[in-house]
Amino acid sequence: MRSPSTQSMDPTHRIGEYLIERLQAHGVEHVFGVPGDYVLGFMDLLTKSSLQLINTCDEQGAGFAADAYARLRGLGVVCITYCVGGLKIANTTAQAYAERSPVVVISGSPGAGERARNPLLHHTVRTFETQLRVFEQITGASTVLLDPGTALAEIDRVLNVALRQKLPVYIEIPRDLYNSPASHAHPRVTVSPEGDPEALREALAEAAEKIRAARQPVILAGEQLHRFALQKPLLALLARSGIPFATTLLSKSVLEEDHPSYIGVYSGGISRSEVVRYVEESDCLLMLGSLMTDINLGIYTANLSQRRTVYADSERVAVGYHRYENVLFEDFVRGLAALDLPQRSGVTHPRPETPSPFVPEPGRPLTVARLFQCLNACVDKQTVVLADPGDAMLGSMDLLIDSEAQFLAPAYYTSLGFAVPGALGAQFANTNLRPLVLVGDGAFQMTGMELATIARYGLDPIVVVLNNRGYGTERPMLDGSFNDVLNWHYSRLPDFLGAGIGFDVHTEDELEYALGAAIAYRDGFSILDVHLDPSDRSPALDRLTEALGRRVRV
Amino acid sequence: MRSPSTQSMDPTHRIGEYLIERLQAHGVEHVFGVPGDYVLGFMDLLTKSSLQLINTCDEQGAGFAADAYARLRGLGVVCITYCVGGLKIANTTAQAYAERSPVVVISGSPGAGERARNPLLHHTVRTFETQLRVFEQITGASTVLLDPGTALAEIDRVLNVALRQKLPVYIEIPRDLYNSPASHAHPRVTVSPEGDPEALREALAEAAEKIRAARQPVILAGEQLHRFALQKPLLALLARSGIPFATTLLSKSVLEEDHPSYIGVYSGGISRSEVVRYVEESDCLLMLGSLMTDINLGIYTANLSQRRTVYADSERVAVGYHRYENVLFEDFVRGLAALDLPQRSGVTHPRPETPSPFVPEPGRPLTVARLFQCLNACVDKQTVVLADPGDAMLGSMDLLIDSEAQFLAPAYYTSLGFAVPGALGAQFANTNLRPLVLVGDGAFQMTGMELATIARYGLDPIVVVLNNRGYGTERPMLDGSFNDVLNWHYSRLPDFLGAGIGFDVHTEDELEYALGAAIAYRDGFSILDVHLDPSDRSPALDRLTEALGRRVRV
Repeated sequence: MRSPSTQSMDPTHRIGEYLIERLQAHGVEHVFGVPGDYVLGFMDLLTKSSLQLINTCDEQGAGFAADAYARLRGLGVVCITYCVGGLKIANTTAQAYAERSPVVVISGSPGAGERARNPLLHHTVRTFETQLRVFEQITGASTVLLDPGTALAEIDRVLNVALRQKLPVYIEIPRDLYNSPASHAHPRVTVSPEGDPEALREALAEAAEKIRAARQPVILAGEQLHRFALQKPLLALLARSGIPFATTLLSKSVLEEDHPSYIGVYSGGISRSEVVRYVEESDCLLMLGSLMTDINLGIYTANLSQRRTVYADSERVAVGYHRYENVLFEDFVRGLAALDLPQRSGVTHPRPETPSPFVPEPGRPLTVARLFQCLNACVDKQTVVLADPGDAMLGSMDLLIDSEAQFLAPAYYTSLGFAVPGALGAQFANTNLRPLVLVGDGAFQMTGMELATIARYGLDPIVVVLNNRGYGTERPMLDGSFNDVLNWHYSRLPDFLGAGIGFDVHTEDELEYALGAAIAYRDGFSILDVHLDPSDRSPALDRLTEALGRRVRV
Repeated sequence: MRSPSTQSMDPTHRIGEYLIERLQAHGVEHVFGVPGDYVLGFMDLLTKSSLQLINTCDEQGAGFAADAYARLRGLGVVCITYCVGGLKIANTTAQAYAERSPVVVISGSPGAGERARNPLLHHTVRTFETQLRVFEQITGASTVLLDPGTALAEIDRVLNVALRQKLPVYIEIPRDLYNSPASHAHPRVTVSPEGDPEALREALAEAAEKIRAARQPVILAGEQLHRFALQKPLLALLARSGIPFATTLLSKSVLEEDHPSYIGVYSGGISRSEVVRYVEESDCLLMLGSLMTDINLGIYTANLSQRRTVYADSERVAVGYHRYENVLFEDFVRGLAALDLPQRSGVTHPRPETPSPFVPEPGRPLTVARLFQCLNACVDKQTVVLADPGDAMLGSMDLLIDSEAQFLAPAYYTSLGFAVPGALGAQFANTNLRPLVLVGDGAFQMTGMELATIARYGLDPIVVVLNNRGYGTERPMLDGSFNDVLNWHYSRLPDFLGAGIGFDVHTEDELEYALGAAIAYRDGFSILDVHLDPSDRSPALDRLTEALGRRVRV
């Protein structure tokens, strides 16, 4: 371990102020949340700071928004009240854990004083520790700031886990302690892990040998390259070596997709066949920062052999069957970029399809495939695409995203309901971007009403509801009335909320008109109710559901 | 313990079928849930059984609906997929725990076979046990049915906790085991706890002595009298003794409120002063089955002395300072009813206000007080009132509910968003009832869209949105823009959903008209957008927020 750096601190800090100051120092400008009496005092502190508090309709929306914000900004914050607020974001926090998104959960809680006097305060479940115990299961670090003597050090310790390990963390503040002065001067300790340079050298040497000897090396660029801000070394590696790269669905857009070395999205049997073939025929696959999950790898239709891989993520570095201990992911990636590798030129490899202009056939009923062709022609450098699991996500696999990190989808955890509140987080994270939200009707009914929050704060995402009257991903696995959802009149939502504009889209020309009008409208959100045949789906979904369906029936 | 009763069982039972059979045997007819691939197989079994699966928009709605169903029927069931479904109902399950509502959580999960092969299946957070660990914190018993050899016994064990202790429980079924035959004949074991008859006798004798000697005995009838179905012994006790009774807000309507011995709702300083005085001046308070919580007891403004109480709930029986071990709550209550007590006649005590006809003053802006006067005149024996925390709940404290258990509110846990999905559960629990839903605008924005589910299944609740443009309960504690919510056009919801009717209500005559029209309309839900002055509130809320506000600022 590197020796801890310390610096002297103003000993008069109050706990709440210190937490706010640290969040600001790490680039946070917005906090998403819902008030409640146990957290009102801290919310009051927030409103007096330069941080902006964004009130969502339900805590679930705040949790998803903070996750999207964290993915774009490196840290996101959700602030809620005790239990009735906190336990509503167990799922969004679990998503952040599963997909390595550094979200800070701040919860108010009963004051230290009232805990002693009263065992049955409102919002309490079993004991005062119930909420903490739940969050211990789904965060990388957690703390209850009951002791002013250690509170500042605890804040640093926990935030450090979020920043270093890219995991959600939990900070609970008893409500009588927000304004407590820290009781002594507080040394700010920042411990950075340090790898073993010898091990690193050997790992890189073995990797270099494997790469040099390879006939067809391919890089599978994972989402952790973005989380750890390693795009520059990756670009250097691509430039030096001429090796082509693919992404997974979770890491889609980790680099601009118009990069000449880009092949496309690899998700085993789900993705385009030429990408599958090129990746699986590789005799040296560099898997960098990619969670080895079932959806990422096409429900284990993937045919990847460990012998032929160089593998590195935040938990493991391995070359073939040799695992290297104490080699840091970021050191290894930077080391790869600095290797003296032969420059391969003239490598022929698959390329993503270039979007072609969408020429609508008037009156022709819209299909999923044509919808995505049209969307592909609309996506530009100011677009951040948020895709909800289902065909919204799978269909967007082949959208060409030509800006870094401008595609967001919970492609591993696959929780429905991320995309609309995610757009709230994404647009606050980068106000230069305009969200394009792709969401199924089932998912929209879970969290879509956060468009009210989007309206309240004057944001202008374009929301495309893929309305196929149900859970389309599940129908081919096992169908029943449980896969149906009520047909809301999504285009009338603006009338209900008093904001935004809505469109009903049945045909190709209606789609072209509606998208054009939505792009031109900047005074609020646009919502397109895109009516699709319940039996229509993307080819990717056909392939996925075939693989999943084999496991539903036993 | 009584010796276990056993009976021979058909050894060919399959696990999923057995679970369904046991739920039916305990009176369950409806299951609330949202599908997902890990639970599709079980949902398919459900649809083939006589149980009806009710699909909600979001899992949160299913959790609240199952809670309301459990309160009315004695057992409720919510069925969801792994993690992305289950973790969304951590909060609703915690509410069921806090308020002793027997909800069975059934979650699908990865199959035993696929767990062995694949560590990173979609929807997995940290390990396959993460969801189980979370639910261990918020349920009375939990199990994962990985072993067909013990699965049937585990189902019985866990359901027994729900039935005996009135707590939520968790049953997880790996998806490759729904259809597994139980591997051996299964003795159904029903263990009933047994109290100590000597201790019971002594406790009753001491209680009898205290009651006989008392000048002004009062019964505080708690919600557990309803959960344990002890209304008959309570009625017998009232009849034999002539002792008057109050309820708490959580137990409101445990008996018909037109009972001649009824005083009103006691919640410490929150309730009507004559009720407070009568209860607190009692020299023998019989607290039967009432959680000693802060909201129930008026945020500790309550002035109750243990010396003067006879206390019994499912966890503790005590007379004055004498605690009796091994005395069962239900035995003690039945024993009280059988005591030879002097019949007090002609006791004068406070009585709830009789609803008077509502005579609207045309054009007069509506106030909270007048709203509840009007509602009081509408409530009848077919009404089940569901009140969301906030002024919707506090204002309804003095509604006269003249049927047993027809007032439902999470008065202790006070989670916003219960009432609308609760109405779904309540009306399925008893189709003879018509829900009157009282909900604030803030709470409506969390779960109100479950009206879509209500529309889908053709139910006809009347929903009154108390629209005061924000979290009205919090404003008097500490106000800021974080207490504002966007003003939706609630009355236009029917147009958005394609179902129901809506009304805008500003004045007294508009309220009378809208309520009359809503009562007459039986083809779907009615929604009344009742516009209130943001600074207007019920006297009860004034008193509550004054007490709470003292603890927000430190």
